[in-house]
Amino acid sequence: MDRYPILDRIKTPADLKKLDSWELSRLCYEIRAFLIDHVSRTGGHLASNLGAVELTVALHRVFDSPKDSIVWDVGHQSYTHKILTGRKDRFDTLRKEGGLSGFPKPQESAHDAFVAGHASTSISAAYGIACANHLNGSDHTAVAVVGDGAFTGGMIYEAINNAGRSDVNLVIVLNHNDMSISRNVGAFARYLSTIRAKPGYLHFKQHVENILDHLPLIGQPLKRALQSSKSVLKYILFHNTFFEEMGLTYFGPVDGHDLTALEQVLSRAKELHQPAVVQVETVKGKGYEFAERNPPAYHGVSQFDVQKGCADPDLFPGCNNFSSVFGAEMARLGAEDHRLCAITAAMKLGTGLDMFSKTCAPRFFDVGIAEEHAVTFAAGLATKGFLPVFAVYSTFLQRSIDQVLHDAALERTHIVLAVDRAGIVGDDGDTHQGIFDVALLTAIPGVTVYSPASYDQLRADLNRALYEESGVVAVRYPRGSENPAHCTICPSEDDIWLEGDRSLTVISYGRTAAALSEAVEGMENPPELLLLNKIWPLREDMVLALSRREHILFLEEAVQSGSIAEHLLAALVKAGFTGRYEMTTLPDGFIPQCSVPSALSRFGLSAEAIREKIEKLQEEDR
Amino acid sequence: MDRYPILDRIKTPADLKKLDSWELSRLCYEIRAFLIDHVSRTGGHLASNLGAVELTVALHRVFDSPKDSIVWDVGHQSYTHKILTGRKDRFDTLRKEGGLSGFPKPQESAHDAFVAGHASTSISAAYGIACANHLNGSDHTAVAVVGDGAFTGGMIYEAINNAGRSDVNLVIVLNHNDMSISRNVGAFARYLSTIRAKPGYLHFKQHVENILDHLPLIGQPLKRALQSSKSVLKYILFHNTFFEEMGLTYFGPVDGHDLTALEQVLSRAKELHQPAVVQVETVKGKGYEFAERNPPAYHGVSQFDVQKGCADPDLFPGCNNFSSVFGAEMARLGAEDHRLCAITAAMKLGTGLDMFSKTCAPRFFDVGIAEEHAVTFAAGLATKGFLPVFAVYSTFLQRSIDQVLHDAALERTHIVLAVDRAGIVGDDGDTHQGIFDVALLTAIPGVTVYSPASYDQLRADLNRALYEESGVVAVRYPRGSENPAHCTICPSEDDIWLEGDRSLTVISYGRTAAALSEAVEGMENPPELLLLNKIWPLREDMVLALSRREHILFLEEAVQSGSIAEHLLAALVKAGFTGRYEMTTLPDGFIPQCSVPSALSRFGLSAEAIREKIEKLQEEDR
Repeated sequence: MDRYPILDRIKTPADLKKLDSWELSRLCYEIRAFLIDHVSRTGGHLASNLGAVELTVALHRVFDSPKDSIVWDVGHQSYTHKILTGRKDRFDTLRKEGGLSGFPKPQESAHDAFVAGHASTSISAAYGIACANHLNGSDHTAVAVVGDGAFTGGMIYEAINNAGRSDVNLVIVLNHNDMSISRNVGAFARYLSTIRAKPGYLHFKQHVENILDHLPLIGQPLKRALQSSKSVLKYILFHNTFFEEMGLTYFGPVDGHDLTALEQVLSRAKELHQPAVVQVETVKGKGYEFAERNPPAYHGVSQFDVQKGCADPDLFPGCNNFSSVFGAEMARLGAEDHRLCAITAAMKLGTGLDMFSKTCAPRFFDVGIAEEHAVTFAAGLATKGFLPVFAVYSTFLQRSIDQVLHDAALERTHIVLAVDRAGIVGDDGDTHQGIFDVALLTAIPGVTVYSPASYDQLRADLNRALYEESGVVAVRYPRGSENPAHCTICPSEDDIWLEGDRSLTVISYGRTAAALSEAVEGMENPPELLLLNKIWPLREDMVLALSRREHILFLEEAVQSGSIAEHLLAALVKAGFTGRYEMTTLPDGFIPQCSVPSALSRFGLSAEAIREKIEKLQEEDR
Repeated sequence: MDRYPILDRIKTPADLKKLDSWELSRLCYEIRAFLIDHVSRTGGHLASNLGAVELTVALHRVFDSPKDSIVWDVGHQSYTHKILTGRKDRFDTLRKEGGLSGFPKPQESAHDAFVAGHASTSISAAYGIACANHLNGSDHTAVAVVGDGAFTGGMIYEAINNAGRSDVNLVIVLNHNDMSISRNVGAFARYLSTIRAKPGYLHFKQHVENILDHLPLIGQPLKRALQSSKSVLKYILFHNTFFEEMGLTYFGPVDGHDLTALEQVLSRAKELHQPAVVQVETVKGKGYEFAERNPPAYHGVSQFDVQKGCADPDLFPGCNNFSSVFGAEMARLGAEDHRLCAITAAMKLGTGLDMFSKTCAPRFFDVGIAEEHAVTFAAGLATKGFLPVFAVYSTFLQRSIDQVLHDAALERTHIVLAVDRAGIVGDDGDTHQGIFDVALLTAIPGVTVYSPASYDQLRADLNRALYEESGVVAVRYPRGSENPAHCTICPSEDDIWLEGDRSLTVISYGRTAAALSEAVEGMENPPELLLLNKIWPLREDMVLALSRREHILFLEEAVQSGSIAEHLLAALVKAGFTGRYEMTTLPDGFIPQCSVPSALSRFGLSAEAIREKIEKLQEEDR
């Protein structure tokens, strides 16, 4: 039996335009079934995609992609878009090595108008495309699809400030589901909810005019007076939303699961030929009961049983990983030290701060997807003697480089960056790899960087960062769990030298240090090892000792350009080092999606690859 | 005769509270005379400071600094604040080596609550301070003073989104002078002007209620209906501004030169004990006719004659510097190639884009102080075949690192970054040094970097960046003029090897390459020189050739960590280099204000210092 009779007929978006309303309704049902079936097997983002099914179908019926450009913000909600633009048959490869990306990728399809992965970029990109169309004399439209979560990011406002009152064909679809990854925060989110609670803007204007129309004698003059009294009354009656103040025509709110209503309002926005915003109300997880009830658990999922539902591992405190160990230590410290504050940019669960947010609620700050603000806000807290810890994924810390430099490091303001997902992250792919933070952070004067290899080190490093160090201190740790083999071999909380054959000295830190200690376990003639925990700044005594070694191999899970391996080489050469120096780092390039073990193995950073490399070098040296 | 009889009595802000209204008025007059007199001799920021005299006096009379924290956004408008907080007698040292900073510096005074220099950070910092006060049970207030120019930066909205509807003592003073550095742009600026044109919000509400009060029969019921009809009408009548929608209590607009009115409204905002915004209308350059007539020319000035006024050198196309040469080439190319677009973040004059903005107006985009948006917007334009050039100061490019990486480099989108003020910038000091862009840009895969040493090279590089390269291409050049000595010696548009004594090979690029060629001019036994123009990625043939050299000295005007010197060393070692390698770079630290020649000399990068270093090395090698 064909499970997807309608969906199977959709080869390009144009095929959507041939369907009648019954078929469209059936199509949406089939898409949901397809999404649940596939994501339960491949893993991926589920709740946001289930919420955007009708919206995506409506977009592709009203607009003519790829001539009209659809720019997805963040992009993990683009699965239906991928299914409808010729990529359904490859959906089993989603987020797998060599397979479909979980995010829009222009290299994957002409229908993916702009790359995505980080938040709040879509209006800037779409406005650029719309300006280009305008300059080209093209009548096509650029559409940005943004969730309300991404509306907490400052780029959205920078873009609206530019797009507002321009005369280009730009439609901003605000997909309002009252969620970013955790529940959404901030004044703007409350403002949007206020709008939703109201009977609709157009409806309301009619209502006021109706009242006035029915007032005898006074009504008509008052209505005319209202409309003519220069901008004043007109302003508040006819420009009552934030968006209209910013020069955008506002449509909404519209039921995001009513295909007819969606198409009507999107068509009106398209025909306007001016920047417009359409506020669409959707339900995250729509159509899958488990997901509707607990959307955060179905934000990003691993494989799960469709009948039984899944549980987000991040929600299970029993299941240890670096994030949960960090979170538990924060909660423990926070109970003792009332100066400790925790800050997250919409990643309370992912960073492990759930417990702290409950037990130390007044000192927990979820700032929304606003990494720039997060750092400067932390610096503000620190100037008054608090101990702020900003827990952030390595890839998103890239957003805050200037704030770390200018607002914190410059005055040696004491803030701690808990840099999660440092290193290869796996199936999220190139937009999310945490492989640049070492280069970026070590470019900033006075920043201290720790890179623990075990939970014990992480706990110790967090304490040192808070109570022994000054200025900006980063503690970076990978996604996932510690390496149990390493912890047995090398249960240290500090940098550690492991004696061995001094004709070769192998240095590493973090996850790779763990792989290294595993690699040499049982070797007959293991080389000397240096497993770093505090990786920056380089300690002078260490540099001096290393400068006398014959042959050094540095293993590092980061891009080479700006790596610790490069910095150490420079320091060694200054100290008179004349030996051989080799580096095994990640290549200076973007690393596509693939499993973490696969990537580490390919780049020579798995225990096996390291062992082979060491044996080869020892062979050569002999 | 004492020129400043009242001002001389102000040793601390507390002294302000003893003055009567005549004395206060006289004080403001004296402060303006003091500012004009001193800045005409030291150089510095003038127009913005003249506009903020009454505002600063009012702030220090209403608030109790440093217990109440005053956070200045950008900070170049803090001169009166410095004068009133005990730093008047050091004002002759303003922006000089070892002297007063032109920006707030917590290390300089307890009254400078937070560092500033870059824009749009003040509300984040002040909200952090306000939260800290709240957690501490302190009743003190944090005040952020922001110009409307800085309101185009996204961090402002991220911060307001967090502060809105919180219950901390935060007062945001929006200093509305309709100017950032050039004339302000964007929808929000227009929105603010709309507010200013209106008769005042409170006034207006009374006006509506008055009308209704005087309507017979209908008036009172309508008024009650308006106030009671659930949030709807109430919402638009009583929450009619953007700020109130974001949960801030709004006061304004207030005449920013009326001290009494300012004190009244600031006091009300302070007593509210909730986040409030006070919109203050000021006139840039107030009280100095030349500056009132042409504020941009008096934004940042060198020494000038008070009687005759000054002219901003950036406005004089005849006076060549790297910025003006860039601007002229952009205008020339823009006339020929209709794909060329220019983007600036509120620095049209400073970056030399004035001419392009006139001759190629539809393809010129001033995005406001919004560097993040600028890059992603450029990438959007590029996806449709345009050639966007984002001209930006090196220090402000730090804001866009993630956008360069994620929104442009990842898909090899072809955008050009014209990175002005690269290297030491002089008296603006540590917040503005352009010494990190090399490390940050070379950490991003696929970015190409040029660093011209002359105008000819700059022109050639811009053409190559646009028409020969792909992906993200940066062309970085210093503040100021080319080195005429170098241009005579070495009139090349490319990388150049200058034959010499091969026992020492000296490598450099950009301004330092020019100093290097000047340094060896006339030497009896000059070393071999390599003057780079394309500095990244490193060319393989160059690395191979250099790997056979005996002794290399790399001179670089950038922090060492992540420098080209470090990257080259790593490449050389991979290629089997066994010679000596020395680096003269900037130290890995922040560099305080001082003249450019003084800094270059101190760090060994002036022609004289380079010559000495070379002679010393040649002596050693002998």
